[in-house]
Amino acid sequence: MPIKLATTVAGLRTEGARLLGSGQGRSQGLVPTMGALHEGHAALARAAVEQNDVVVATIFVNPLQFGDAVDLDRYPRTLDADLALLEEQGVDLVFAPSVEEVYPGGEPLVRITSGRLGEKWEGASRPGHFDGALTVVAKLLHYGLPAAGLPAVAAAPGSLPAYRAYFGQKDAQQLALVRRMVADLNFPVEIVGVPTVRAVDGLALSSRNRFLSEEEREAALVLSRALRLLEERAVAREPLDLDSARSLVESQPLVALDYFDVVDPETLEPLAENCRETPFSGEALALIAAKVGPVRLIDNAPLSS
Amino acid sequence: MPIKLATTVAGLRTEGARLLGSGQGRSQGLVPTMGALHEGHAALARAAVEQNDVVVATIFVNPLQFGDAVDLDRYPRTLDADLALLEEQGVDLVFAPSVEEVYPGGEPLVRITSGRLGEKWEGASRPGHFDGALTVVAKLLHYGLPAAGLPAVAAAPGSLPAYRAYFGQKDAQQLALVRRMVADLNFPVEIVGVPTVRAVDGLALSSRNRFLSEEEREAALVLSRALRLLEERAVAREPLDLDSARSLVESQPLVALDYFDVVDPETLEPLAENCRETPFSGEALALIAAKVGPVRLIDNAPLSS
Repeated sequence: MPIKLATTVAGLRTEGARLLGSGQGRSQGLVPTMGALHEGHAALARAAVEQNDVVVATIFVNPLQFGDAVDLDRYPRTLDADLALLEEQGVDLVFAPSVEEVYPGGEPLVRITSGRLGEKWEGASRPGHFDGALTVVAKLLHYGLPAAGLPAVAAAPGSLPAYRAYFGQKDAQQLALVRRMVADLNFPVEIVGVPTVRAVDGLALSSRNRFLSEEEREAALVLSRALRLLEERAVAREPLDLDSARSLVESQPLVALDYFDVVDPETLEPLAENCRETPFSGEALALIAAKVGPVRLIDNAPLSS
Repeated sequence: MPIKLATTVAGLRTEGARLLGSGQGRSQGLVPTMGALHEGHAALARAAVEQNDVVVATIFVNPLQFGDAVDLDRYPRTLDADLALLEEQGVDLVFAPSVEEVYPGGEPLVRITSGRLGEKWEGASRPGHFDGALTVVAKLLHYGLPAAGLPAVAAAPGSLPAYRAYFGQKDAQQLALVRRMVADLNFPVEIVGVPTVRAVDGLALSSRNRFLSEEEREAALVLSRALRLLEERAVAREPLDLDSARSLVESQPLVALDYFDVVDPETLEPLAENCRETPFSGEALALIAAKVGPVRLIDNAPLSS
C-alpha cells in the first residue's frame, strides 16, 4: 500500500483509525524523527514494521529543542526523500505537521522538565535542549496513541502492549530520558531502543555528518575507534583504561573532545574510578562528544562485562 | 453494583477493562481526588456519572504537592466515608494507591513544570505546588485511560470524546493549569470543570474547613460575600470597584488577606486597571486567598458581563 501523509492531527487520527481497523489485538508503532533520514532511521522503521500491525512515522523539526536559531535553520529538510525511505521500509503513515499545528498557541507554557538527568552531558552544552525534546516527545506520544484504542490490559499477563515507540541508541541520553519520562509519568507505551547504525568505516550515522569535510570525516573516526577500544576491553574483562582511550581522541588535532566517560546506563552517573584499574562488571555505557571542525558529534557504546 | 476498590495500577486496568467491556462507543470519566470528600466532590462524581458509562474516582494524597510535611501529615484521611460517598453517586471503581505504587522509584526525576502560570497566586505562596500537582495529574490521566481504548476519532465530527476528567472550579488555578497542560501536551482527554459547591451560608466547601473554629468560620464568610459583591456588579454592568470589595475583607480582623484580584480566566493575568472605574466586558475570574486563623482558604467567582 502506498504510504499516506497527514499534516494535521485530525488527519493523523482519521487515517490512523482507518489503518488500525477494529484494533482488536492489533498493535501500533510510532517512529518519531526530525527528517533528514538515513539508514539509522531506516533501522528504526524496520524494527517498528516487524513488530507492529500499523506503523506511523513522524517528521518534525522541533524548534523547542534548538538553543540556536542558526542551527535550527540549517537543519536539513528533505521531505520527498524521507517519504521514499519510509515507504521502502513498509511504514504506513507519515505525520509531518507544521510548527503551527504542533504549537497552535505559540510556545507551550506547561512543559516536561528533565531534571538533573537532562542537565549533564549533552544537556550541559545545550541548556534546555532535553526539556524541549521531551516536551515534543510527550506530544508525539499522545498524537500517536492507537486511535482504535489501547488493548484491554486484562489480556494474558506478559502479552505485549499494543503501542510501542522507537528511538535510536545513538542518542543515548535522549533514550534514557524518554524511558524515564514514560516510567515517571506512566505514558501507556513501550519504548524500544534500536542499536546505532554505522558506516562501513565505523562512523555513527547522523544527519549532521553531511556537514563534515572529507578530512574532518576521516578525523571523526577516532570517536568510534576509541569506543571500540573500550568495548574490546570490557569483553576481555580488562580494566577499561579510559585515560588511554581519551588520549587517543586527544591526539587527533581536528577533534576537540567535550566529554568521554563511562556511565550507568540508567542514571548516566559516571562509574567509580576503579574501572580504570580493575575491570567493571555488569552493564555500562561509554559516552563521547566532540567537535570535529565546526560539527558537534556524539557517539556511544553499550558495554557489558 | 457495589463500588470496586483497586489499590494497584494492574488492578485498576483489569477492573476498568472489565467494566468498560468492548469499549465500542462507550465512555469513561475520571474523578481525581485527595480523599476527605465532601459535597463538592459528590458534585464532580455526579457530573461524571451523568456523562459517562464508566466512572473511576481516584483517592491519593500526593506528597509531591505539599511543601510542608506537617500539612501533608494532617491532611485528613477518611477512606471508608469516601467510598460510601462515591458509591452513593454511582461511581463504579475507586483507585486508592499507596505512595509506593505511584512513585515506585521514589520521587520522579522527569516532571511536569507549570511555567509562569504556576508561579503566581497560589504558586507564589506555595513554591513547587503546581509542578507537583500537575505531575501527579499527568500520571492519573494516564492511569485512567479507558483500558478498552480511545474511540476511533474517525467518528462523526463533533462526537464527544470517550475520556473525560473532572476538576472543581473551586481550585480555579489548578483547573486552568490542567486545561493548559492537556492542550500544551495533547493529552487525549476532555477536561470538565464543575462549579463550586457552597454551604448554605456561602462558604465554599473545602476539606480544610473542618479546621476552622466557629468564630473563624463566621469570619471566613467575608470571602464569599466579597466575591458575591463583584458578581452582582458584573451582572449589573457596573464598575467592579475591587478596592471597596477588598476593604470589606480587610475590615474583618480574623482574616489576613493574601490576594484578591480580577483576572483573565485562561492566562490568570489581572485585568486592566479600568474595571475599577468602568465596567469590564467578557469573561473574567475573581480570585481570593486569605488566612482565617491558622487556615489558608481560597475561593473564586467566574464573572460575566
